[in-house]
Amino acid sequence: MRIDILSLFPEMFKGVFGSSILKNAQDGGHVTYQVTDFRDFADNKHKKVDDYPYGGGAGMVLRAQPIFDAVEHVRQNDPESKPRIILLCPQGERFTQKKAEELSKEKHLILLCGHYEGYDERVREFLVTDEISIGDFVLTGGELGAMIIADSVTRLLPGVLGNEESAITDSYSTGLLEHPHYTRPAEYRGMKVPDVLLSGHHANIEEWRSRESLKRTWKRRPDLIKAKTLNEKEKQWIKEFVDESNCY
Amino acid sequence: MRIDILSLFPEMFKGVFGSSILKNAQDGGHVTYQVTDFRDFADNKHKKVDDYPYGGGAGMVLRAQPIFDAVEHVRQNDPESKPRIILLCPQGERFTQKKAEELSKEKHLILLCGHYEGYDERVREFLVTDEISIGDFVLTGGELGAMIIADSVTRLLPGVLGNEESAITDSYSTGLLEHPHYTRPAEYRGMKVPDVLLSGHHANIEEWRSRESLKRTWKRRPDLIKAKTLNEKEKQWIKEFVDESNCY
Repeated sequence: MRIDILSLFPEMFKGVFGSSILKNAQDGGHVTYQVTDFRDFADNKHKKVDDYPYGGGAGMVLRAQPIFDAVEHVRQNDPESKPRIILLCPQGERFTQKKAEELSKEKHLILLCGHYEGYDERVREFLVTDEISIGDFVLTGGELGAMIIADSVTRLLPGVLGNEESAITDSYSTGLLEHPHYTRPAEYRGMKVPDVLLSGHHANIEEWRSRESLKRTWKRRPDLIKAKTLNEKEKQWIKEFVDESNCY
Repeated sequence: MRIDILSLFPEMFKGVFGSSILKNAQDGGHVTYQVTDFRDFADNKHKKVDDYPYGGGAGMVLRAQPIFDAVEHVRQNDPESKPRIILLCPQGERFTQKKAEELSKEKHLILLCGHYEGYDERVREFLVTDEISIGDFVLTGGELGAMIIADSVTRLLPGVLGNEESAITDSYSTGLLEHPHYTRPAEYRGMKVPDVLLSGHHANIEEWRSRESLKRTWKRRPDLIKAKTLNEKEKQWIKEFVDESNCY
C-alpha cells in the first residue's frame, strides 16, 4: 500500500512514521508513507496557500489550486491507481475500525490535512472521495487524524503484525471489552492478584475472565451488551452484577 | 499547565510537540510537555517492562512497577499538584470536546501510553484517575491518543490561540456543521463560486450560509439536528431539503 499525506507541517510525521510498527511496516516493504508539503505547489510568489473568504467573515480559507496540483503530483507516484482521496475534517464521517478495514484493502490512500482553516468547497466537491472525522473534538489540524488512519490501516495489512500483537486484536472480536490482566509479582505494594489466576485451574480461570469481561462491558459500554446475543450464563451474570451494584 | 507523557516510544512525540500551535504554546510558556520513557524505571537488569499474564494466554502484560515508579517520578515535577493520571486504552471513556474542556482546567496531566499490550490491572485500579479512548478503532499504542489529548487541551488554554484561529472554533458553538467556504479565484478549472457570495449583499450571504450550514448538518449529522431547537425558517428549510432529495 502507498499512503501519501498532504500537509503544511510535514515535520510532524517523522517521529510517528519512524517508530515501532509503522517503521517496521515501511522497512519491511508493506507500506510506503510519503508526506508532501502542498505549500510547494502554490502558484504565487509568496507560496501563499490561503486567502480571504468570499462573502466576508473571520478566518482564512485554503485555496483550491495548491491542493488540486499537489494531488495531481502525488497521483503520479502510482498513476494506475484510483486512490481514495481523504479529507480530514470535523464534518466528515466518523472514523471506525470498520472504515479502517475498508481502507486497508485499497492500494493508494491520499490523506489531505488542513490546519485550523476552512477548505475551498471545490476541494470537497470535485476532488476528494471521502471526508473523515476522528471524533467530536477540535484539533489544530488534520495531521493527527491522518496519523491515526495511517496507523490503524497499516496494522491491518497482511504480514505487518507478529502473532503476539495480533492476539491482542482478536480480543476485540468477541464484542466485549477485555478482561483484566495481571503479571508478576503476585503482590506489589500490598496489591494482590486474584487467587483464581494463581490456581492453575484453567476452567475456573476461563470462567473468571469471561465474567470479568462481561462485567467491565456492562459497566462501561452497555451499548455493546445491547448489541450482543447473551447466553444463559451471561444473563445470570448480568443479574448478579445488578444485585451487587444495588448493595452500595 | 504541565503535561507529562509516559511512553516506551518518546521519539514519536518530537514532531508533534515541535510544530505549529503546540510548539508556540510551549515557547510562550502556556504549557510544558515532557515525555518520559518508563522503561528507564524498570527495576531489573534488562529493563524489561512486560511479562507473561497470570493464568496464561497470548500477549504480554505491562508490569505495574515501572509505571508506578515513573508516575511517582514525574509527580515530583509538580509536587503540589493533584494530577489527573490518564490511561489511554480502548476500554476507556470516549474522548469528546467536553472532556477536553474539563481537562483544560487542570494544572497537571499525566498521560500513560501502553503499546499493543495489556496493563497490569493494579495500574487501572490503584493509580490512574481516568481511562480515555479516542474512538472505536484499534491503534498500535496510546501515543496518538495522548497527542490528541495534548493538542485539543492545549488549544483551549488562555492565550494560546490568536483571534483568527479562535474564530474557527466558534463555528462549532452553533451546534451545526460549518457552511461551505470559498476563496479566489471565482472560477478555477471551470468550477465556480456561488453567485450570492460575489454579490456583496450581506443579508443574502448570511441567509445562504445559515441554510447551507443546516443542509450539511441535516445530510451528515441528523443527530445534531435532533438535539437542536429549530426556528420556523429552519423548519421550512428542512422541508425544502426533503423535497429536493425526493426529486432524485
